[in-house]
Amino acid sequence: MDIKGYQFSAVEAAIKKPGRKDLALIFSEVPARACAVFTTNAVKAAPVLLSAARIANGTAQALVVNSGNANACTGEPGMVAARETSHLVAEGLELPDDAVQVASTGVIGVQMPLERVRSAIPALIEGLSCGTLDDVAQAIMTTDTFPKMEARAGRAGGVSYTVAGIAKGAGMIMPNMATMLSFIITDAAVEPALLDTVFRRAVDTSFNIISVDGDTSTNDTCLIMANGRAGNPPIAAGTPEAAAFEALLHDVLLSLAKQIVKDGEGATKFVEVRITGAKDDADAKRAAMAVANSSLVKTAFFGQDANWGRIFCAVGYSGAQVDQTLLSLRFDDVCMAKNGLFAGGDAEARGTEVLKKKEFTVTVDLGLGSGIATVYTSDLSHEYVSINADYRT
Amino acid sequence: MDIKGYQFSAVEAAIKKPGRKDLALIFSEVPARACAVFTTNAVKAAPVLLSAARIANGTAQALVVNSGNANACTGEPGMVAARETSHLVAEGLELPDDAVQVASTGVIGVQMPLERVRSAIPALIEGLSCGTLDDVAQAIMTTDTFPKMEARAGRAGGVSYTVAGIAKGAGMIMPNMATMLSFIITDAAVEPALLDTVFRRAVDTSFNIISVDGDTSTNDTCLIMANGRAGNPPIAAGTPEAAAFEALLHDVLLSLAKQIVKDGEGATKFVEVRITGAKDDADAKRAAMAVANSSLVKTAFFGQDANWGRIFCAVGYSGAQVDQTLLSLRFDDVCMAKNGLFAGGDAEARGTEVLKKKEFTVTVDLGLGSGIATVYTSDLSHEYVSINADYRT
Repeated sequence: MDIKGYQFSAVEAAIKKPGRKDLALIFSEVPARACAVFTTNAVKAAPVLLSAARIANGTAQALVVNSGNANACTGEPGMVAARETSHLVAEGLELPDDAVQVASTGVIGVQMPLERVRSAIPALIEGLSCGTLDDVAQAIMTTDTFPKMEARAGRAGGVSYTVAGIAKGAGMIMPNMATMLSFIITDAAVEPALLDTVFRRAVDTSFNIISVDGDTSTNDTCLIMANGRAGNPPIAAGTPEAAAFEALLHDVLLSLAKQIVKDGEGATKFVEVRITGAKDDADAKRAAMAVANSSLVKTAFFGQDANWGRIFCAVGYSGAQVDQTLLSLRFDDVCMAKNGLFAGGDAEARGTEVLKKKEFTVTVDLGLGSGIATVYTSDLSHEYVSINADYRT
Repeated sequence: MDIKGYQFSAVEAAIKKPGRKDLALIFSEVPARACAVFTTNAVKAAPVLLSAARIANGTAQALVVNSGNANACTGEPGMVAARETSHLVAEGLELPDDAVQVASTGVIGVQMPLERVRSAIPALIEGLSCGTLDDVAQAIMTTDTFPKMEARAGRAGGVSYTVAGIAKGAGMIMPNMATMLSFIITDAAVEPALLDTVFRRAVDTSFNIISVDGDTSTNDTCLIMANGRAGNPPIAAGTPEAAAFEALLHDVLLSLAKQIVKDGEGATKFVEVRITGAKDDADAKRAAMAVANSSLVKTAFFGQDANWGRIFCAVGYSGAQVDQTLLSLRFDDVCMAKNGLFAGGDAEARGTEVLKKKEFTVTVDLGLGSGIATVYTSDLSHEYVSINADYRT
């Protein structure tokens, strides 16, 4: 990956326990255009409060992020810890404090071990000379079983540029917030207003259409930095370059979002829930989310049980306008139900075959209008219960 | 239990499979005042559609109910089956068809085996001479591990009367619908408008404040019949007798609702979630429901993990007005967090002791106003996943 003007580092600060890198840094050699979206949860982690205030000016030059502690429900001491961490990084990098974004993920309600973070920061800055984005992706993992990365190359004004992103998240995933943690960097130069618009639109059609367990975290953050070091003339709204940049950015975010679902805590299935024929798109999303969040539907997926009735049930209580005599449902291309009724024939056997696959699509047509929506989700397994029953131990 | 003027019966119709009684009948010797509340799901089972239309006249004399098949997502054949079942019962009992209520519970999307039901109805009517309410409670069980019954005695105008109820339900339990199936009978005479008012109020503060998994069924029905055979002068609104009747009815419904939570699929814990200090009662209920429905909170309960941060997180995304610096939380009488912060000291150890109990209370004070709400819920265990992954097999 050839992305210009960024440096990376990750070190072990033993924030929760020793044995792995848990403190990471992304540094742009020049100030970058930046914007971010954060959790909609009314309970917001200290780094979210701090970073949201700082990003308002539209620039950032560094991001310091830790796993092992969410620094949420930690009150004023938590704010002090976030501020002090960013201050130490700013000092080391000779930046103003407010050029540093902060993000955290891990246990809620435990104070940050600030002294251990403080001790680790010199090595963190030192490490910028030799770190990679992959090191950062590794360091931000919690219950994740694999690091999540994606990169795409584009061209603008005859100059090549790259968009690269990392993400972490495996549980507490629910849209209408930013996402879990995801950091996107590009060396493209992009006009500020355009960057903001396309970024928000890309989040909306990627991280905001996935659901693992319906819980919205206190720490969700998705940040993009564009430092312009590729040397292209800034990409301007309304140009073919803008459309290409948006498509590419969307690809990166959607890939990361899907990786999060595939790594859903205990997930054994990756399911695309597609609603068609809804009154409008908002209704379609309501119905898709109800299906994706239903424990009964998700356990049926885990059990490879073609129990389409539970899916109609979830659509029915979603709040979307529904006429039960018009509902139809397919597992991949197998029609399970039509006009609200079981399709008969060999649908049961063929539907069960589909559900045995690791990835499949559930399509429910509401038969009312032209509203559509797609949501990605996973199943609900024994392993999910195990992971979350024992998370803090 | 001495309740006058009702007869009961349950037989085996082998609706899903042979080996247990799955078709039951409650018969009032005289027409009873009746009202009912049904699921808010837009996808409604055939018996729900039929019974809702019939109950509009405020009377009923019989209820025929089956387990093993929900008769939902079954279209016109499903309506025919529900109508025909009630017609056969009406004929056998010499009643008009619309005096018969119908209810079903079981698998969605499978047509009723009408011939097997038809064959069983003579024995069902025959059995009224010797059946009990307990037989009916047994016959309506699906994943329930025990039958749910409650009865209370009262007095009005110097005459003793009884309110008795049964219920079934262990999964797909979520308020803002009636409940799962619950049937309440009383021999008291009650003025129709009063019966309607107190019944709806009692449902609202019992079945509508429980949640097992956040799924609202297609078949939820709660029906009350009051046949007046106790011989009391009809209980009238605004009298002490009315207040006593309402209290007693509420006790019966709340007991049944709690039994459903205790029998929650795979449940190992019974948890009372109490919200205080909310802006208003509606906000309190929003917060309580978010906590009760959070998979992350429920798995932590299962793991006996005093992870109060997840509870604050759920309160935060509930939509209730929240100031995170004012939140406090107790497990029973152990203060875990105050002013949004961990309480420190031995709170962790003492909180963990509370979570080891089979029943405990979680109280979250929002510190904003006088709104309160209580919701009952269970934990999310391996067993829940097993039951629902393999439900149809």
